[in-house]
Amino acid sequence: MSNKELEMLRDRIDELNLEILEKINERANLVQKIAQTKVTHGAHRYDPVRERKMLDDILAKNDGPFDNATIAHLFKQIFKAGLQLQQEDDSKALLV
Amino acid sequence: MSNKELEMLRDRIDELNLEILEKINERANLVQKIAQTKVTHGAHRYDPVRERKMLDDILAKNDGPFDNATIAHLFKQIFKAGLQLQQEDDSKALLV
Repeated sequence: MSNKELEMLRDRIDELNLEILEKINERANLVQKIAQTKVTHGAHRYDPVRERKMLDDILAKNDGPFDNATIAHLFKQIFKAGLQLQQEDDSKALLV
Repeated sequence: MSNKELEMLRDRIDELNLEILEKINERANLVQKIAQTKVTHGAHRYDPVRERKMLDDILAKNDGPFDNATIAHLFKQIFKAGLQLQQEDDSKALLV
């Protein structure tokens, strides 16, 4: 592989980083919107059944190179971060 | 928010999950390709300078709702998973 080819692969990784960033934040935005609804509807925010279903759907579509354990680990981190974001929103709301 | 609107938000989250999955695996594929080159070129695989640069680029573009600490945490997990994948490839190569 030439240096130029290596450079191209790295450029594509840089692009992918930003695309992943965008999608992770878009996802967080939607999670926040849903959380606001749940406040008014009085539903629980942490929904293990929904989370399990999401994970199953994701793993069913996983064709690597990351194995299912790795993908599950990464998405659990994303889910957890979303939940923390909702808790931060709650704290801010309490201060208003 | 109506149940139908909630349903639409959840559908979009499901779509985003799969888009994130796709991009994370595409990224892992490129990382593997670069790692193979490094074997033949004898370069070190773990490149903290490159990782720092990637993280800086990502954080510079982060406009939330996740804060920089959360985004840095999530991407460090993705970087680490990529490195582990390379190590697994090494082990397999040793068995051939």
